[in-house]
Amino acid sequence: MVNYQSFLGIETSLLKSSEIRDLLKLTEGKKVISLAGGLPDPSTFPSEDIRKITDDIIRDESAQALQYSTTSGVMSFKKELVNLSKMRGISSINEDNIFVTVGSQEALFMIFNIFIDKGDYIAVENPSYLAALNILRARQPNFIGIDVDPQKGTNLDQLEAKLKELKRENKKLKMFYVIPTAQNPAGTTMNFDDRKRLLDLASEYDFIIMEDDAYGFLVFEGDSPAPLRALDKEGRVIYTSTFSKILSPGLRLGWVVAENDVIKELEIYKQNVDLHTPTLPQYIAREAIKRGVIMNNLPKVKSTYIEKRDVMLSAIEENFPKEAKWSHPVGGMFVFSWLPEKINATKMLEKAMNRGVAYVPGASFYHDYSGKNTMRLNFSYPSKEELKKGVEILSKVIKEEFSNS
Amino acid sequence: MVNYQSFLGIETSLLKSSEIRDLLKLTEGKKVISLAGGLPDPSTFPSEDIRKITDDIIRDESAQALQYSTTSGVMSFKKELVNLSKMRGISSINEDNIFVTVGSQEALFMIFNIFIDKGDYIAVENPSYLAALNILRARQPNFIGIDVDPQKGTNLDQLEAKLKELKRENKKLKMFYVIPTAQNPAGTTMNFDDRKRLLDLASEYDFIIMEDDAYGFLVFEGDSPAPLRALDKEGRVIYTSTFSKILSPGLRLGWVVAENDVIKELEIYKQNVDLHTPTLPQYIAREAIKRGVIMNNLPKVKSTYIEKRDVMLSAIEENFPKEAKWSHPVGGMFVFSWLPEKINATKMLEKAMNRGVAYVPGASFYHDYSGKNTMRLNFSYPSKEELKKGVEILSKVIKEEFSNS
Repeated sequence: MVNYQSFLGIETSLLKSSEIRDLLKLTEGKKVISLAGGLPDPSTFPSEDIRKITDDIIRDESAQALQYSTTSGVMSFKKELVNLSKMRGISSINEDNIFVTVGSQEALFMIFNIFIDKGDYIAVENPSYLAALNILRARQPNFIGIDVDPQKGTNLDQLEAKLKELKRENKKLKMFYVIPTAQNPAGTTMNFDDRKRLLDLASEYDFIIMEDDAYGFLVFEGDSPAPLRALDKEGRVIYTSTFSKILSPGLRLGWVVAENDVIKELEIYKQNVDLHTPTLPQYIAREAIKRGVIMNNLPKVKSTYIEKRDVMLSAIEENFPKEAKWSHPVGGMFVFSWLPEKINATKMLEKAMNRGVAYVPGASFYHDYSGKNTMRLNFSYPSKEELKKGVEILSKVIKEEFSNS
Repeated sequence: MVNYQSFLGIETSLLKSSEIRDLLKLTEGKKVISLAGGLPDPSTFPSEDIRKITDDIIRDESAQALQYSTTSGVMSFKKELVNLSKMRGISSINEDNIFVTVGSQEALFMIFNIFIDKGDYIAVENPSYLAALNILRARQPNFIGIDVDPQKGTNLDQLEAKLKELKRENKKLKMFYVIPTAQNPAGTTMNFDDRKRLLDLASEYDFIIMEDDAYGFLVFEGDSPAPLRALDKEGRVIYTSTFSKILSPGLRLGWVVAENDVIKELEIYKQNVDLHTPTLPQYIAREAIKRGVIMNNLPKVKSTYIEKRDVMLSAIEENFPKEAKWSHPVGGMFVFSWLPEKINATKMLEKAMNRGVAYVPGASFYHDYSGKNTMRLNFSYPSKEELKKGVEILSKVIKEEFSNS
C-alpha cells in the first residue's frame, strides 16, 4: 500500500488538529459532562420558522435555491445582510461590501491566506479564538500577543508599546486580529474609548484590523459599543460575523463586511476553495432576516444563555478555590478561568475527564501556548443540572491539584 | 483610505479569477445565448422530493440537522455515501474512507494544498477541468500535460514516455489529476484496459492518482467502466464526486473516497478552512440516497441531457465548417470543439458575444493556455431552441473568422 506520508506537502506538517474537536471525540459515548464544546443550545433554534421558510423557498424558488449561485453570495441575501449589519451599527455600506462565507471560519481562513505571509507581523489577543490561531500558525507569521485583562479588556498600552518597538526596528505590523465584543474566550468587551484609540493606532501605524464579531448579537447586558467597522473612517477594518449563534450553526453561514477591494480578493480566492457558499442555506437565512425571525428570536437566545451563565457563575463562586480568577462574561457562551499559576490545566484534563467533566485547556487559546493555568468553560450547551454538577466535580479536581502541587 | 494592494500576500497575486465566472458576469442582463455556463437544467432537480425530505428532517431532527457537525461529515450521511459509492462499483470501503466536502471543488482545493508543493511534478490532461487547473496554478507545480484525443481519449503512451523521461532525470511524478469518465471538457471516457494500464503505471512509477468522477453517474450510453478507485489495489487513488449533477448544485455537496491516512489529513485541513460542511444539506442528501430519489431521478436527468446533446450535435454537424472537429460526449454536459488551427477562439469571443452567443474559450482548459483554437459548449442549461440558434450564430462567426484569417 501507498505510504502517504512521503507524498505530503511541506506545509501540511504545520497543520494541527483543533484541540477542541479532538477532545469532543474523546468524550463521545462516555458519561462525561462536557464544558469543552462550543455548541449553541438547540432549544434556541427557531426550527418551526425555519421549517416554514424552507418549505416556501423550495415551493416557490427551487430553480434558483437549488442551483449554483455567485461566488460572493446570493444578491437578495447580500441585500438583507446590509440590513442586518446596520442593526450592528454598520451603515454606509452596500451589497458590494458584503461577502458570504461557509461560517465565519472560512472568512478567517481566506483573509489570513490572502494577506498573511511567512514572517509577517500579526497581533492577536492573549487569549484569542483557537481556530483562528490554528489558521494563522500554518501561515508562519511573527505573532505579537496582546494581553486581555479580565476587568480592563485588551491591553492597548501594550499594543502601542509593541508598535513603537517595531517601528524603532523598522518593522511593521500588518494586521491585528481582534474580537472586541464578548471576546472568545475571555468574555470581555472593549469600551468605546478603546475602540477609538485602536482605530487611531491603526491609522498612525498603518495596519489592517480583522474584526471578529461572532458574538456581536449576543451581548447580554451593559454597554455594547458599535463594532470597530462602524467607527472606521479609513476602510481599515475587515469585519466578519456568523449565523451560528443567532439562527443555526448547521447552515454554516458567515459574512464579511469590507472595502470592495477586499471583497474582490475574496471572490478570486473562494473560486478556488469551493466556488460558492451553498445556495439553499443563503435563501433560508435571507428569509429569516426578512421575516424578522432572527431579531424576534434573539431575546429568547439571550435569556437562555443569561440563565445558564448565572448557574455556572454561581457554581464557580461557590466551589472554585479563592486563588482562582474567572471572567464574568457580558456575552457569548464561555467563562474563562485563570487558575493559580502552579496548576497546569492541560495536564489536569485527563484527571478531570476520568472524574466525569471535560473543559478546554486555555493554552490552546494562546498563540505561544502560554496561559497553561487557564481553562475555557462552555455554558451554552449543557443543561443547568450539568453545569452545576460539572463545575462541582471540576472544583474538587482543581482543589486537589492545588493542594498536591 | 487604505491601499490594500500593499498588504496582499505574495501568493495572492498568483490567483486568477475563473474565466467562466467572469464571462457569466459579462452576459448578465444581456440578450446573449450562453453556451459558456455549466449549470444543470433546473427541470432535473427533484424539487418536490427535496421539499418533502427537508420538511421531514426539520420536523424530526432539527436539533441535529441545524447544529454543528463533525468535520469529516455527518455519520449517517457517510454511511449512505458508502452505499452510493458502491453503485459506482467502489466496494470494500467503510465510513472511515469517506469525507464530505463543500462540492468536489473543495475536495480538489484541499487535496492539492495538502500534497502539491512548489516545483512538484503533476500531470494533468490537456484539456482538463478549468477550476482544478486554477487551484494547481496557485501551487506553482511543474505541469506535465497529457493530450486527450477526441477518439482515443487520454494518451497513456505520452504519459509513459514522460514518466521515463522524468526517471532518467532523477525526477518523480507526484500526482496525476485525471477525469477518466465523461471527461470535462473533452467528453471522452477511458476504456477498461487503459484504466488498468494507468494503475500499473502509477504502481511502477509510484505516483498518486486524483480521480475526478464528477460526471460518473451521468454516462449516457456505451461502456461505463468502473472508476479507477474501484480497480485500485494499492490505495493509490483519491476519488471525488459531487451531488451537483445528480441532485442539486445549490446544496454544494461533494465527497472523497480515499485511504484513511488521506481522510485524516483532510480532517485537519478542513478544520482550518470551514470547520465542517453545512449540516442541513448533508441530511437532505442522505435522505435523497436512502429514499431512492437520486437513482429514480437519474433516468430523467440522462434523457434530458441526451436530447439536448443531440440537438447541439445536429446543429453543429449541420452548420460548423468541415475543417472543425468536435467531441461526441458519452456523458456530462459539454461538447468540446477543435477549430482550424488558425482560429483564435479567445479573440473570437467578443465578436461572438456581440452577435449574441457566448462560449468558453478552450485555452483556459490547458495548463499552459495552449489549445487556442478550441472552445467548450454547454448543452445542459440552454433550451433546445437556444442550443440550435446559438450554434447557428456561432457557426457563422467561425466561418467568417476562418475566411478572414
